Amino acid sequence: MCELLGMSANVPTDIVFSFTGLVERGGITGPHRDGWGITFYDGKGCRSFKDPLPSCESEVAKLIKNYPIKSRAVISHIRQANRGGVSLENTHPFTRELWGRNWCYAHNGQLSDYEGQLPSKRFQPVGQTDSELAFCWLLEQISNEFESMPEDSQLIFDFLRSLGDQLKAFGVFNMLLSDGEYVFAYCSNNLSWITRRAPFGKARLIDTDMVIDFGQETTPNDVVTVIATRPLTNNENWNIMIAGQCVMFRLGEKLHQFIPKS
Amino acid sequence: MCELLGMSANVPTDIVFSFTGLVERGGITGPHRDGWGITFYDGKGCRSFKDPLPSCESEVAKLIKNYPIKSRAVISHIRQANRGGVSLENTHPFTRELWGRNWCYAHNGQLSDYEGQLPSKRFQPVGQTDSELAFCWLLEQISNEFESMPEDSQLIFDFLRSLGDQLKAFGVFNMLLSDGEYVFAYCSNNLSWITRRAPFGKARLIDTDMVIDFGQETTPNDVVTVIATRPLTNNENWNIMIAGQCVMFRLGEKLHQFIPKS
Repeated sequence: MCELLGMSANVPTDIVFSFTGLVERGGITGPHRDGWGITFYDGKGCRSFKDPLPSCESEVAKLIKNYPIKSRAVISHIRQANRGGVSLENTHPFTRELWGRNWCYAHNGQLSDYEGQLPSKRFQPVGQTDSELAFCWLLEQISNEFESMPEDSQLIFDFLRSLGDQLKAFGVFNMLLSDGEYVFAYCSNNLSWITRRAPFGKARLIDTDMVIDFGQETTPNDVVTVIATRPLTNNENWNIMIAGQCVMFRLGEKLHQFIPKS
Repeated sequence: MCELLGMSANVPTDIVFSFTGLVERGGITGPHRDGWGITFYDGKGCRSFKDPLPSCESEVAKLIKNYPIKSRAVISHIRQANRGGVSLENTHPFTRELWGRNWCYAHNGQLSDYEGQLPSKRFQPVGQTDSELAFCWLLEQISNEFESMPEDSQLIFDFLRSLGDQLKAFGVFNMLLSDGEYVFAYCSNNLSWITRRAPFGKARLIDTDMVIDFGQETTPNDVVTVIATRPLTNNENWNIMIAGQCVMFRLGEKLHQFIPKS
């Protein structure tokens, strides 16, 4: 299992607080020692910082903690390897360009018996993980279904949901996907989210001794959604997603959601 | 104009010495204040550090100088914007996946009257530069010409040379391209390279007061080629390329070269 972290916000926001909690799970409070990565969007551009070293020991992770990069869309991942060795090419998030947009993806879980079931030609994995294979297959399906980004975001949401359902059938598939504008989250068994907006309060990290007063860090119009494998704070109400649930955010706001009938 | 820097080596090698000279040109000894980037390969994986800020002021550039990342193939670029604004999506190097390999590219120069002349569909630019447009066109041509990476590297070398010649016809096109294994350099007007091997000596940077004794940093079997827009040291013999010349390296060694008859 790995840890996912995502953010969608209506103003460029730094994710240092949440990232600080996440990196603790990369070898201190959690067993995820097999590398980590974080992708920040800035307009249409994005930049990824990745390290196959444990996040709790990584010089690059220290940079991210000390030098806040503000962004409206972020995807991050710390890894506990199952399929594919510990190497840079197997380190999430993965990115590919489609329709002149940077698509970024991270996966938590493990797929089985998928050999030959997830073909792709245009997008091919560089590494050996089931995760990147699923990403390539997913983008290939999207590029086959649509000529360009559909104007009606409901269309891409519904299609992504159907792809998530197909991938979940191969095992555990918790996933974050973004094109810089939309942030999509698909839950197989472990994914939570919270939207923070005025009036902002204080939050206390579960994984390390750190409290932040968002009232000091924000303006009244800020809307910031954070998505994580497990809640990162213990004094706020997180939305705990159920199997097959998915949700899409844009500029911090929930745009579409699907909750399976239980 | 921008500054290019590339490396090909037979052992993972840090590029801090050359990078230190390059970043001085990003706002101190040179006018290239419009962002910078560097891509390091590690096996099949690669990671890019990019910043739209001037390299001489960049926190991320400080990290690279203080935390040497060793690699067999590196491409770096500092930018003085001409076409396309100063933004992350316009910051080199650009990367795309083809055939399950990460291709990385940086361009120095400026193209003109290319509108409609460099079509591509599968690979589309995210930003607004002529450079990224040329990269997308170039990859599209490669993917149309070959089904997969040709086993005979002479074939891809010759094809890349023909593409370089076509792009040079639109203006100034100095270019570095790598798939992590090969490093290809095409010269339009400004590109130099040097291969260092035993016996290693001392080198003195032109752009800042720094001397390195490679004998202290290397083993006798190391072979390291550095490619740069202009020579970075003033006490070594660099190969100054001429218009239309191109060269391909693998593991530090020159594999193919073409020098036009003058």
